[in-house]
Amino acid sequence: MKEKKMVYFFGNGTADGEAGMKNLLGGKGANLAEMSSLGIPVPAGFTITTEVCTAYYENDEKWPDGLEEQIWENMRKVEEAMGAKFNDAENPLLLSVRSGARVSMPGMMDTVLNLGLNERTAQGLLKKTNNPRFVWDSYRRFIQMYGNVVLGIAHEKFEKLIDEVKERKGVQLDYDLTAEDWRELVSKFKELVKAEIGRPFPDDPVEQLRGAINAVFNSWNNPRAIRYRKIHDIPGDWGTAVNVQAMVFGNLGETSGTGVAFTRNPSTGENVFYGEYLMNAQGEDVVAGIRTPEPIARLAEQMPNIYEELVAIYKKLEQHYREMQDIEFTIQEGKLYMLQTRTGKRTAQAAVRIAVEMVEEGLIDVNTAILRVEPEQLDQLLHPMIDPKEKVEAAAKGLPASPGAAVGRVVFTADDAEAWAAKGEKVILVRTETSPEDIGGMDVAQGILTARGGMTSHAAVVARGMGKCCVAGCSDAKVNEEEKFVMIGGKRVNEGDWITLNGTTGEVIIGQAKLVEPQLAGHFGKLMEWADKARVLGVRTNADTPNDAATARKFGAEGIGLCRTEHMFFGEGRIAAVREMILASDSAGREKALAKLLPIQRKDFYEIFKVMEGLPVTIRLLDPPLHEFVPHDEETMAELAKEMGVPLSTIKAKVESLKEFNPMLGHRGCRLGITYPEIYRMQAEAIFQAACQLAKEGIKVIPEVMIPLVGIMKEFTTMKAVVDEVAAATMKEMGVNVEYKVGTMIEVPRAALIADEIAKEADFFSFGTNDLTQMTLGFSRDDAGSFINSYLDQGILEKDPFQTLDQTGVGQLVDMGVKKGRSSKATLKVGICGEHGGDPASVAFCHNVGLDYVSCSPYRVPIARLAAAQANLKKPRA
Amino acid sequence: MKEKKMVYFFGNGTADGEAGMKNLLGGKGANLAEMSSLGIPVPAGFTITTEVCTAYYENDEKWPDGLEEQIWENMRKVEEAMGAKFNDAENPLLLSVRSGARVSMPGMMDTVLNLGLNERTAQGLLKKTNNPRFVWDSYRRFIQMYGNVVLGIAHEKFEKLIDEVKERKGVQLDYDLTAEDWRELVSKFKELVKAEIGRPFPDDPVEQLRGAINAVFNSWNNPRAIRYRKIHDIPGDWGTAVNVQAMVFGNLGETSGTGVAFTRNPSTGENVFYGEYLMNAQGEDVVAGIRTPEPIARLAEQMPNIYEELVAIYKKLEQHYREMQDIEFTIQEGKLYMLQTRTGKRTAQAAVRIAVEMVEEGLIDVNTAILRVEPEQLDQLLHPMIDPKEKVEAAAKGLPASPGAAVGRVVFTADDAEAWAAKGEKVILVRTETSPEDIGGMDVAQGILTARGGMTSHAAVVARGMGKCCVAGCSDAKVNEEEKFVMIGGKRVNEGDWITLNGTTGEVIIGQAKLVEPQLAGHFGKLMEWADKARVLGVRTNADTPNDAATARKFGAEGIGLCRTEHMFFGEGRIAAVREMILASDSAGREKALAKLLPIQRKDFYEIFKVMEGLPVTIRLLDPPLHEFVPHDEETMAELAKEMGVPLSTIKAKVESLKEFNPMLGHRGCRLGITYPEIYRMQAEAIFQAACQLAKEGIKVIPEVMIPLVGIMKEFTTMKAVVDEVAAATMKEMGVNVEYKVGTMIEVPRAALIADEIAKEADFFSFGTNDLTQMTLGFSRDDAGSFINSYLDQGILEKDPFQTLDQTGVGQLVDMGVKKGRSSKATLKVGICGEHGGDPASVAFCHNVGLDYVSCSPYRVPIARLAAAQANLKKPRA
Repeated sequence: MKEKKMVYFFGNGTADGEAGMKNLLGGKGANLAEMSSLGIPVPAGFTITTEVCTAYYENDEKWPDGLEEQIWENMRKVEEAMGAKFNDAENPLLLSVRSGARVSMPGMMDTVLNLGLNERTAQGLLKKTNNPRFVWDSYRRFIQMYGNVVLGIAHEKFEKLIDEVKERKGVQLDYDLTAEDWRELVSKFKELVKAEIGRPFPDDPVEQLRGAINAVFNSWNNPRAIRYRKIHDIPGDWGTAVNVQAMVFGNLGETSGTGVAFTRNPSTGENVFYGEYLMNAQGEDVVAGIRTPEPIARLAEQMPNIYEELVAIYKKLEQHYREMQDIEFTIQEGKLYMLQTRTGKRTAQAAVRIAVEMVEEGLIDVNTAILRVEPEQLDQLLHPMIDPKEKVEAAAKGLPASPGAAVGRVVFTADDAEAWAAKGEKVILVRTETSPEDIGGMDVAQGILTARGGMTSHAAVVARGMGKCCVAGCSDAKVNEEEKFVMIGGKRVNEGDWITLNGTTGEVIIGQAKLVEPQLAGHFGKLMEWADKARVLGVRTNADTPNDAATARKFGAEGIGLCRTEHMFFGEGRIAAVREMILASDSAGREKALAKLLPIQRKDFYEIFKVMEGLPVTIRLLDPPLHEFVPHDEETMAELAKEMGVPLSTIKAKVESLKEFNPMLGHRGCRLGITYPEIYRMQAEAIFQAACQLAKEGIKVIPEVMIPLVGIMKEFTTMKAVVDEVAAATMKEMGVNVEYKVGTMIEVPRAALIADEIAKEADFFSFGTNDLTQMTLGFSRDDAGSFINSYLDQGILEKDPFQTLDQTGVGQLVDMGVKKGRSSKATLKVGICGEHGGDPASVAFCHNVGLDYVSCSPYRVPIARLAAAQANLKKPRA
Repeated sequence: MKEKKMVYFFGNGTADGEAGMKNLLGGKGANLAEMSSLGIPVPAGFTITTEVCTAYYENDEKWPDGLEEQIWENMRKVEEAMGAKFNDAENPLLLSVRSGARVSMPGMMDTVLNLGLNERTAQGLLKKTNNPRFVWDSYRRFIQMYGNVVLGIAHEKFEKLIDEVKERKGVQLDYDLTAEDWRELVSKFKELVKAEIGRPFPDDPVEQLRGAINAVFNSWNNPRAIRYRKIHDIPGDWGTAVNVQAMVFGNLGETSGTGVAFTRNPSTGENVFYGEYLMNAQGEDVVAGIRTPEPIARLAEQMPNIYEELVAIYKKLEQHYREMQDIEFTIQEGKLYMLQTRTGKRTAQAAVRIAVEMVEEGLIDVNTAILRVEPEQLDQLLHPMIDPKEKVEAAAKGLPASPGAAVGRVVFTADDAEAWAAKGEKVILVRTETSPEDIGGMDVAQGILTARGGMTSHAAVVARGMGKCCVAGCSDAKVNEEEKFVMIGGKRVNEGDWITLNGTTGEVIIGQAKLVEPQLAGHFGKLMEWADKARVLGVRTNADTPNDAATARKFGAEGIGLCRTEHMFFGEGRIAAVREMILASDSAGREKALAKLLPIQRKDFYEIFKVMEGLPVTIRLLDPPLHEFVPHDEETMAELAKEMGVPLSTIKAKVESLKEFNPMLGHRGCRLGITYPEIYRMQAEAIFQAACQLAKEGIKVIPEVMIPLVGIMKEFTTMKAVVDEVAAATMKEMGVNVEYKVGTMIEVPRAALIADEIAKEADFFSFGTNDLTQMTLGFSRDDAGSFINSYLDQGILEKDPFQTLDQTGVGQLVDMGVKKGRSSKATLKVGICGEHGGDPASVAFCHNVGLDYVSCSPYRVPIARLAAAQANLKKPRA
């Protein structure tokens, strides 16, 4: 039987492996092989496969038979390719030994450089380079790395010896040490090693190599690697490959150098070669920032041949990978070597431009372009942002609750916000936390900062809905609402002082930063156009006002998936009637107050329907617990008592009686409709009067009435009967016919369990995944802040389930709801209107389980459109 | 083809139908047929089947072909049997016409009596009875009933005419009107009918009968019947039968009479004939209470032959039905007729005695006896109760939150309760609502009264756990805790005044009522012994103290299914350490406080394990949110600050930070264990130190450690690792081995969804159906009071899901949890420890889905044992 191939050579324009062999060779090894095959100059080397690592562990940490032979066989090829010999006293070949798993595991990578050095080969290197400082510095680096990685001696012990020499010489930087200093340190390092491990540092390069390879194998099972794999669900039996590669040096003189570059501008996407380099330097010098690198274009003057070769290589790599590349190169004594190529990171703007232009250039097809842009990135393009040229310093950091940036003067109450805004001031509303009463102030503010609350707190949800910048849960902001100041990161900020919020990062900046407006350039529009053709999942928006609806329509929304009626209840001249309705002692009193609200609600719906002409508008009937609407301060209660002509004590008692231990699970949603049917009746009247009026005006309206918080079959049928009755009566009275649907939220776990029953009567379902997540996991989104970070840190949760749908748990209920629902009614329309509707991973899930549409905040509509397209390209739906 | 049989005759010792034909003949018709077949004298008649009713509706409200013929054919048999003729001028046969559905529908029963009367037959009746007052009274009653039921004329219009005559004659009672008066009213009634319907009252008995039969058919679809069926899920196509039966009269003189009786004493169960009768009276006279009926034994003297016949009949019926019967009879001129027999209602005490004695008498077998007693009824036998001989008047009524009765002097705080009790006073603790801080006061009180909170409020749950009488949510009790008085039903009750609570009915009585202690007589023990042999489902108890555990063991508990550790935290000298632990600023501070708690917890567990020697004890690690333990009044906070040596503001800030919007869904359960592992570690130490100590003393302990509120796989594995580590270390240290299990609550919906995963690591599951119900339905049990009654009234919910498990919704998750869990681990032990574990219907569900055991409050253990036996008899488990 032929022996299994365990070692793969690369170099000299050939390679045993290729880019597709990542499972066997690891990511790094596979890419080095690919470059070499392309004829790109790569320092020669070989890769020991991941299978060997697995065999090593299965074989009691011994090498499998034949590995030794294959290694030396390939070593000879490397020697030949590099024109140098391993362990040679005249022209020694030095090696790097690196791990390389299937997927990048940054925490666990062990690396040994300059392997092959000993007193004898150091002499050879001296002869070859005539550069003693380089040689002794390289040698001591090798002992230090090997001592640490292979022999397990703490890094600090070596550093301490260096510090002693520096102190003695009175210098600060490594740079100031001489060849002799480094030579002395080589001796000291060897003494240290001997003292630590009880035997001399291994001089034999063969022994060095064996030790380094084993160290890489062993690093696969060090505690931090095991922990990393556990968190990232990487199987333990994958193993790591080992890459053994010839060293090349950019610090061998004025014809040596090193650099990094991008094949296009990673900031703008412009199709120009972009990068920087340093002559007579190593990679780490570029990173350290002690010398300033030159822009890559300078290389064309300094080393025209090398530059020309580099340009040819980058073009070849981009053509080959059909993707913008991030490359590293080293020039060793006038010869160019490529050390790495990988997909380059880029800004959102660049990602869009590159994807679109590569299609125009014929490099990639449209579908590839769609898949090239991270949907989440688009968020950066849709909001004002802090001018990237501006240097700003954050005084505190909270949660990036709603993206974009905002500058304004600090105010501490919603009333102040409205008053200042009325005078033309730009304000930032700063609150410990917001409540529905603050909605007016939030609406006029440039941005919102809260000290408490998570990504789905009231402030965050409302701000995202408004497309308004918000930093939430900023625990470094201590708000004193009474005395009207806030301590931000220990600094006092008074009412009227300027601050800047970055809702994309969560940063809070004291003072005014410069903002730039979003540019929805032509590339963006083109990409969106392609995405729309590629998707089957519809995208609607959550919008409560005509303004939001218009914004969302501009961003491509195909309807409203969730129009919350409660926000309308807080407006000027409305809240009084709402409170009167809530505090009425009987249904006659409630009806009197509701009669005042009817024309106002009708106008709201009229305007929203009009903006959404021809598109469906899903209106959710009143959902929140009533205590959110009543006043909680004595003054307002007294006013209300006067208005209503009842004693203050009556108002107080009623407000008290509305308090709930767990309002999330309390008297809300359709439970209000069941106990006070007159409320839902009024809302239905407003909806159908507005719809009929528009129909008479020749405007097409598609109302979809949604009953919230249904968990019991008869809740739905009872409320549907009210809606149907009002609809019939209104249409008869107004002499016009309007087609409409009545459906329900699926947001209580029980609703998903009985979805087959509900679907018999409902025209549509809309998964309210915010509440469904809260109830399925038993997490209150307002309270989870106290433990959820601990959960994420400890890896108990991989993602915040309020941001990305918990597919394992909540997803089972969504899938069950869809399947059960469609089993009763094949034509059932099913959507989602929780916050997850704008999260790309959740959008993909929604596509895969067969939803008809997702609905999200206006500003996330483009993200959802792109995510839906990608989901369909990855897993097309029949 | 032979015509379908639509009419079933009964009478004269024969019958076409029998008791098993309830679907076709309705309940009433089937039982009349059965009695007749048994040779028991029943007024002859016939039943028109429910199928005819359905056909009537399918056939445009017309009679099916052949019905008319079958009716008259059977009428001839009735005439023959009764020796009288329908519509006969000499010896007229009068009829009753009644509806009779498969199941009793009390709201919709339409009845017409004395049908067949007109001027001509009235003369016949006069001749036959020689009793003009009887004849004209009967006649006017017929017109009145027929006018109302068949012709739709309001009852009041007839009553008004009677009142006019009474006024004119200056009399008060119907009784005082003469034959002439009634005769006059017959004329006036006829005039009224003619004026109302525009044609004369139908004189033709044939027309009368047709009208009455149609009226009964139509009553099936009157609005109140439709509503009743909707609420009770009775299909509309079942239809009603119509019973046409010969009238007999108990008011024809001194040899006529009427009575009701039970075949055994329904109060004590004693095997004696028990009942009462009135001579010369109709059934309604017995009910009206104008004359005092005689005890049934008097009949033996008054009409020995009739009495003898009656005794023979009752014995025959009891033998035949093998069940205690509730019978009605009428004696018409010395001839006995049985009008009804049905299963007799009885007290709990009687039910047990009758069931056991019937087995001893050989009437029924043991299994039948087990099925004869309503498990819920047993509750009456296990608590003190208000002496049934005592007449008491309730001043207010709340929810019957925890059964039994209690007498005591009113106190308004837990501290007062403890102080008064220490002085030997019996107290009733009266609170607006209770909180965990009140636990000490609740423990010493005789009973608890709260103004707010439902059947599963804190007060209710804790009281039931303690087996202590509690009336909760009594909205007629307005508590003024500051000024220490309570208005009960408008009457002021001060501190120190006596009140009596009836926790079985929810009644609150001002003053001291006399109580009687429960008698767990021999019959009860015998029945329980039989039940234990008949069941496969285990019954454990929820007990937090050695005292509760001992009570439960006495009641037959086979282990502890839920030992809540938090109640232990509230005891004397503990709460201070608990608060110190919670308010500590770091884990070192927490550990210091926990070290104080360790010996206390160890002692708790030691004592409970000892009481439960040889039986499993499931201990739930700390579950409730921490803010339940911290003080909320400034004074206590100040004390604590002093003790801990920190400023009051620090304590205040920490207490404030523990406040949650929805504590039910907040930082509690294993979330505490994840964020503060030292808490669970201390509890595990206490458990295993106690267990090892007892093992060394030769006492068998079976600890089962339960992790609460798990919803995520890693929550469980992380906490299990802590427990296992502590267990191993403790056993090693103490040099003894104790077998133990580590399992989890399934109470978050997500846990049921991923039960297959969790079961891979867990030794057992215990369904926490209280929380599972809250989260699956989205109902906070503390807040549901504001709408749940409305839900029950409107038939949206059939039962309170916190009392009886919601099988349709929550039950799906339980079933799923069991199936998924056992799919991973066939030997997985699965139980339930929510309140539902003591609810008979829920116990049956638990049996059917294959649980290993239920766990309930000590006082409900016998109920669960009986319910489990019944469930297995109804649906035996393999």
